[in-house]
Amino acid sequence: MKRIGLFLTLTASLIAGSAFADEAAEGAIKARQAMMQLFAFNLGVLGEMAKTAVPYDAEIASAHAGNLLVLSKMSQNGLWPQGSDIGSYPDSAALPDIWSKYPDVLEKDKVLDAAAEAMNAAAGTDLASLQGAMKAIGGACGDCHKVYRQKK
Amino acid sequence: MKRIGLFLTLTASLIAGSAFADEAAEGAIKARQAMMQLFAFNLGVLGEMAKTAVPYDAEIASAHAGNLLVLSKMSQNGLWPQGSDIGSYPDSAALPDIWSKYPDVLEKDKVLDAAAEAMNAAAGTDLASLQGAMKAIGGACGDCHKVYRQKK
Repeated sequence: MKRIGLFLTLTASLIAGSAFADEAAEGAIKARQAMMQLFAFNLGVLGEMAKTAVPYDAEIASAHAGNLLVLSKMSQNGLWPQGSDIGSYPDSAALPDIWSKYPDVLEKDKVLDAAAEAMNAAAGTDLASLQGAMKAIGGACGDCHKVYRQKK
Repeated sequence: MKRIGLFLTLTASLIAGSAFADEAAEGAIKARQAMMQLFAFNLGVLGEMAKTAVPYDAEIASAHAGNLLVLSKMSQNGLWPQGSDIGSYPDSAALPDIWSKYPDVLEKDKVLDAAAEAMNAAAGTDLASLQGAMKAIGGACGDCHKVYRQKK
């Protein structure tokens, strides 16, 4: 995901007034959850193929891997306003450490970017290539969720 | 949005068994609503700039217009299984005409694609260009919602 988006968000949030910020935060939470939903949906289709629950189809696999790639590249400007964590917004699962350990989030984000690139290159090749790329992208999601998302 | 995605979905849905289809439909509905949420969020930021509720910023405008463009290009494979309309899934606002008037949906989709391209070209230029591109993209959303989405 895009570095600059997150940076701009954090900067803008420190400037924005709090009355505006509450409404903005609710919209941002919905939007970032929507982004996560699309990650999950597209990764889910690839996962079904990887475990041969559905037949491998190069065109369909490429389509979903392509979606993951553009999602990973999408600007996240406005999605993570300071204070929009689970403490203030129970509908969010975002832990406050996202903001206090910000450089680490960016590092994890870069790992996801690389995994999405690799999946995009692999998914349309054959089933074995798709299967080989699953662990890295699933791991990139999990490594961030493990520390920055509230456990259910 | 991508033509082939919708075509594949419809084809696959006619083949898929109904027990599988129900669970798949619920996931598809969530995912397509997530896609719409991201359209709304990104268009919302541009709309705030267009009406000068927030200051024009070429970099931020470009980021959100770029998001709209990739959303419009995203494969929608799997998002619209036959029968996943409001009649069977009250959480969906999708009217059955989406499936019975399918070629018209594609036509409207092409209008959205063109409007997203135009916004992407305009948003980073200046405020007047952004403002000039708003009507077409807002109209493209509305023209499809008016006939294919249940009124609230």
